[in-house]
Amino acid sequence: MILITNDDGFYAPGIRALREGLSAVTDVLTVAPESEQSAVGHAITLSNPLKVRKVEEGGRLIGYAVNGTPADCVKIAVTELLDEPPELVISGVNQGGNLGTCAIYSGTVSAATEAAIMGLPAIAVSLDSFEFQDFSSAVEFIKSFYPMVIEKGLPEGVSLNVNVPAVTREKIQGAVVTRQGKSRVIETFDKRVNPRNETYYWLAGEMKFDEVEKGTDCEMVAENYISVTPIHFDLTHFQALEVLKEWKLDF
Amino acid sequence: MILITNDDGFYAPGIRALREGLSAVTDVLTVAPESEQSAVGHAITLSNPLKVRKVEEGGRLIGYAVNGTPADCVKIAVTELLDEPPELVISGVNQGGNLGTCAIYSGTVSAATEAAIMGLPAIAVSLDSFEFQDFSSAVEFIKSFYPMVIEKGLPEGVSLNVNVPAVTREKIQGAVVTRQGKSRVIETFDKRVNPRNETYYWLAGEMKFDEVEKGTDCEMVAENYISVTPIHFDLTHFQALEVLKEWKLDF
Repeated sequence: MILITNDDGFYAPGIRALREGLSAVTDVLTVAPESEQSAVGHAITLSNPLKVRKVEEGGRLIGYAVNGTPADCVKIAVTELLDEPPELVISGVNQGGNLGTCAIYSGTVSAATEAAIMGLPAIAVSLDSFEFQDFSSAVEFIKSFYPMVIEKGLPEGVSLNVNVPAVTREKIQGAVVTRQGKSRVIETFDKRVNPRNETYYWLAGEMKFDEVEKGTDCEMVAENYISVTPIHFDLTHFQALEVLKEWKLDF
Repeated sequence: MILITNDDGFYAPGIRALREGLSAVTDVLTVAPESEQSAVGHAITLSNPLKVRKVEEGGRLIGYAVNGTPADCVKIAVTELLDEPPELVISGVNQGGNLGTCAIYSGTVSAATEAAIMGLPAIAVSLDSFEFQDFSSAVEFIKSFYPMVIEKGLPEGVSLNVNVPAVTREKIQGAVVTRQGKSRVIETFDKRVNPRNETYYWLAGEMKFDEVEKGTDCEMVAENYISVTPIHFDLTHFQALEVLKEWKLDF
């Protein structure tokens, strides 16, 4: 059985497309946030209780909506809602790419990371556009790709961050393995004053690719390839480790 | 000037201890969440506007409270509130360790990571206890350590995750450079039924160290050393990259 989740919420079109595409070929169950949870990063809910609502369609259980984050959904699905661990966790299809440094803000990616922490193979999949709503190529790719992930398995602690270009099927050049590129949201704040004369700010940044280096997710998606990046949750910077060991830490 | 932030909120005792300790030796400004933001991961606030409230103490500006996450605080401080970039960003002192895999859930660590994304040197600092409230050793260490960070600088994209054991000063064995260990929250959910007969769940996990490997943050803090781990935001698993390149990705 494949566990499906996302950060755009249970009723988002991307997760519906994924569920419908996969349920034609295998058993799936959706455990996803009740409401949109974009840019929540790797949040978990400690200060509120989680409520779980059963969702049926045509009299058939399709899953559970949870008032929590994507990482909460994976935790509670595996720990409480499923009888046995899923063979695979797939998070998406997200509306909007999770490329470069931006992956760190992504609820979609965090669900896959949470699965990896729990020892499960996992894929995050995102369509690189906030407008283009044709999820069919992303779903097609996942359908052809997921059996390989189950069959070959992933190294311990590793999950996959898949990004699909927002173009029609015939324009997609293929699928490639990439490393994470450098991108960041350029922070601009839109400063406003409310009727009570209080200042408030909207984060109005746009994504910028600092360097579109060869072989990165950013570059390959820009060239209309589907990008598959193996990611993990060990944040250690090993080169810096050597540098810092030269410092004299007296205390 | 040093920018101070945290995830426990502007009025938490740990950030107060840090502010008071550092302001005796250098210029500091606090830009921190209005309310507790623990376990928010690397969240940023896109769907709500950010409000910023000036905080004064004894007629003197000490900083700004923001209705957002730690990453929001760093973004808005650097982009909107400060006249020039801070020399250094320090996030903490957090009540509770951010050791091993748990660092990925940490708002404290995410503030330092956000600073690194913005090109600023940064330190996250946590006291490894939810009860022990003596932040003095953590503050002492930061006071002796931060000038070295400013003087030597950090490699691009690197920030430091510092964890301090919850013991008195004389029991601390020294400070060491470590790598991130493996730990995880063991997910247990406490299932309850409310008066309207609805089921809800509290996440009631406890931290578990899977393997306390030599040279990791988990091990060294357990042995009463202050741990300094260089971290970064490139999630790529480079070994898996080689493995995956052998797979045949037809599409």
